[in-house]
Amino acid sequence: MTFSHTQALSDLLGASKVSSAEADTHQRRFDRWCVKHYRDWRGQTVTAPACVVSPTTTAEVQALIRYANQHAIAVIPYGLGSGVCGGIEPQGDDILLDMSRMNQVCDINPTDLLATFEAGKNGLEAEEAVAAHGLTIGHWPQSVAISTVGGWVSTRASGQFSTAYGNIEDIIYAMEVVLPNGEIVTLGKAPRAAAGPDLRHLIMGAEGIMGVVTKVTLSLRRQPEAREFSAFYCHSMAQGFEAQRQIVQADWRPPVMRQYDASEVTRLFPNYESDDSGLLLMVHEGPAGRVTAELEAIRAIADTVGLVEADSSVTKGWLDHRNHVPEWVDLLNMGVIADTIEVSATWQQIDAVYNNTVAALQTVPSIALASAHSSHVYRSGINLYFTFACAPTDAAEMEALYFEAWDKALTATAAAGGGIAHHHGSGRLRRQYLHHDLGDQGIELLRTVKHAIDPKGIMNPGNLLPEE
Amino acid sequence: MTFSHTQALSDLLGASKVSSAEADTHQRRFDRWCVKHYRDWRGQTVTAPACVVSPTTTAEVQALIRYANQHAIAVIPYGLGSGVCGGIEPQGDDILLDMSRMNQVCDINPTDLLATFEAGKNGLEAEEAVAAHGLTIGHWPQSVAISTVGGWVSTRASGQFSTAYGNIEDIIYAMEVVLPNGEIVTLGKAPRAAAGPDLRHLIMGAEGIMGVVTKVTLSLRRQPEAREFSAFYCHSMAQGFEAQRQIVQADWRPPVMRQYDASEVTRLFPNYESDDSGLLLMVHEGPAGRVTAELEAIRAIADTVGLVEADSSVTKGWLDHRNHVPEWVDLLNMGVIADTIEVSATWQQIDAVYNNTVAALQTVPSIALASAHSSHVYRSGINLYFTFACAPTDAAEMEALYFEAWDKALTATAAAGGGIAHHHGSGRLRRQYLHHDLGDQGIELLRTVKHAIDPKGIMNPGNLLPEE
Repeated sequence: MTFSHTQALSDLLGASKVSSAEADTHQRRFDRWCVKHYRDWRGQTVTAPACVVSPTTTAEVQALIRYANQHAIAVIPYGLGSGVCGGIEPQGDDILLDMSRMNQVCDINPTDLLATFEAGKNGLEAEEAVAAHGLTIGHWPQSVAISTVGGWVSTRASGQFSTAYGNIEDIIYAMEVVLPNGEIVTLGKAPRAAAGPDLRHLIMGAEGIMGVVTKVTLSLRRQPEAREFSAFYCHSMAQGFEAQRQIVQADWRPPVMRQYDASEVTRLFPNYESDDSGLLLMVHEGPAGRVTAELEAIRAIADTVGLVEADSSVTKGWLDHRNHVPEWVDLLNMGVIADTIEVSATWQQIDAVYNNTVAALQTVPSIALASAHSSHVYRSGINLYFTFACAPTDAAEMEALYFEAWDKALTATAAAGGGIAHHHGSGRLRRQYLHHDLGDQGIELLRTVKHAIDPKGIMNPGNLLPEE
Repeated sequence: MTFSHTQALSDLLGASKVSSAEADTHQRRFDRWCVKHYRDWRGQTVTAPACVVSPTTTAEVQALIRYANQHAIAVIPYGLGSGVCGGIEPQGDDILLDMSRMNQVCDINPTDLLATFEAGKNGLEAEEAVAAHGLTIGHWPQSVAISTVGGWVSTRASGQFSTAYGNIEDIIYAMEVVLPNGEIVTLGKAPRAAAGPDLRHLIMGAEGIMGVVTKVTLSLRRQPEAREFSAFYCHSMAQGFEAQRQIVQADWRPPVMRQYDASEVTRLFPNYESDDSGLLLMVHEGPAGRVTAELEAIRAIADTVGLVEADSSVTKGWLDHRNHVPEWVDLLNMGVIADTIEVSATWQQIDAVYNNTVAALQTVPSIALASAHSSHVYRSGINLYFTFACAPTDAAEMEALYFEAWDKALTATAAAGGGIAHHHGSGRLRRQYLHHDLGDQGIELLRTVKHAIDPKGIMNPGNLLPEE
């Protein structure tokens, strides 16, 4: 490993912006992708980047990218490291571009409901900044407190309130991007346009391979006038899906709709267990008159489908404690390797996706847990969020079991017609499965565009696209 | 003009699919772009394509594109010719690809609310096909009866019910496309994905320069349980905009919200004139309980802002007669050249966009009419639809006045911060103004992608991108 650029970068950007100190490079070797934590826990080497560059302005990002382009050095954009699919895998001669010091609120406009942030802004801090004006971004990924607004854009993130408020592509207004050639482009100008293809979509979901997001303008909402909770037991996942389909297709949109299978009810809501039922939790928000009408209509639909109303305190409890997740290393210390896998499918496919994927996970050796809940609803279908855990007697087997579980889950989902990636992104974990969603020709199209925009391949090489 | 490929194409695709007869080429020289009708009316030559190819299968489109690519022949995709921005400008050695015989309903799925059409399907026929199942596409461009579903996608179309039901990018589910290299790609699989960039957006709005849309799957809605109408007078456009802002930002979404200035009230709704007031028309749709709550809330907002309720029969009348538009040639025969110009802007910009653009249009010599209405509302802003008419004593001046009006309107809109294209597309009419929306760097990015996907430049050359 020979990396001879640290001094030059330091001269270019200032010494305070560039570090090759092990304290800095070591802690950015990986994000929250489970398998890297496993390797680190096992004492295996996880490679650190050559140096960490932490710009504070777009001009500095531009200067860095121009330098990297000129010298054909790989650059790995990094926000707050909440990714779980291997979007970050620095090599020893790569530059890790830490965006977390670009964390300013640029503008909040309560008339137009627009707010602009530097891309490294912490998501919860961004939400709190607009909340002070009575506004909300309405985007609540579980990672909200440990992710950045730029990361939301780069990974095509979804929040827990997406069923009414949309995913990041419905919330984005504009973005500033430094392209791999060092040019700065602002994409998105008006409330809506038919001025050629919507180029924001080249960047959303690109996971750093098309450039660096430096600023993000989001389209906000006013905080809702009213909020109510509801909860219903379903005898089967299929019954609950049918109720959710009828609710959404009747054009009701509770921002939160989450349906847990019986296994997850036992694990997450033990005080609310009822026979072998699943639980459908809903949060209703909006003008008070609409919330009242929505609750009444949904109760009628639930009754028709045969759901049984539950104590809505379970939903309130979920809301209050929803973002607590264990650290991977704590699970590993307990002898467990675990992960979640989010997919989506149409209503006609979803029963098979649920049944077949849980069944497939249960064939993984040493499997201790295979369950699912849904959390994002569309007119045409719904997502599923599988959780699996393996507890082998020999910890050396964990990594192979982990990849076996992923392989079986994605293969079963694709075989049932589902899409293999709902909102965590693809990274290096899913790239060999992307053909299920994009087809070989879609992958070739993406590769063509990538090569055109980044001919030297400096931006996050190896991410997203399967190996040729 | 020497075009030597008609026989070869006929051998490749069958004689019934290829015509160089003047009867066929002549009627596809242009679409509904006003200026071409003017030139034709004046007796000027408007060039016809070398031949018209009318495939009936995707395989035939693929064969055509492969042939055109091999021989570097330009291909101009054409639906039902409802475009108004110069998206079609065939040269004498171009192939016009008439998609209108690819007009089958492939599938209607009332459970998943999905319907797949061949791209040349007439929009109203598509709507009627799903209406038979109690469903609706919810996409009602004024051109619905004379446009195709593929055209909607290619131009990033909007419908009159967009405020609740979204624009075409919110309605699209998947599409099949023949790329310029002849490969067939299906983009869009699941209800939602984070499987890399959403490549459907390379095609939506590309106006034929990135490939040929051959099939479209749309995400439908159930027909609403209830529909109500309302109407309100506003003393000024600014007052009406303020009411619309408050309504939408309170999270009410009447599918139709249309606000006409006093000039248009006089012209379009003479029986409802009231002093010098504008008119805000709304259609409310959805579950009955929500429609009731929405009407009540909106009346309260209107009252607060100072609007005065009008007889809602004006809205019902609009709905019943909304798609009648005069033919250009009838206006020309009356000594008038006219057009509409749709733009959008944020709430803070929209008053200036309205005032300045109307004022700019009024400086065009021989201007007889300069007015506007809004018709598509967003959390962050709204569109405006300007209408202008010039009536010079010398008809020879009409074309120059037409382009002067467009130039002044787009320049005034851009100077006030607005976006210069809301939903008619760009074509050749707006390409020299696109930099206002995309910036020079955005145009370069689009050009880079276009060259990568279509290195020989066979797809609709000269469209959309400004000249280099």
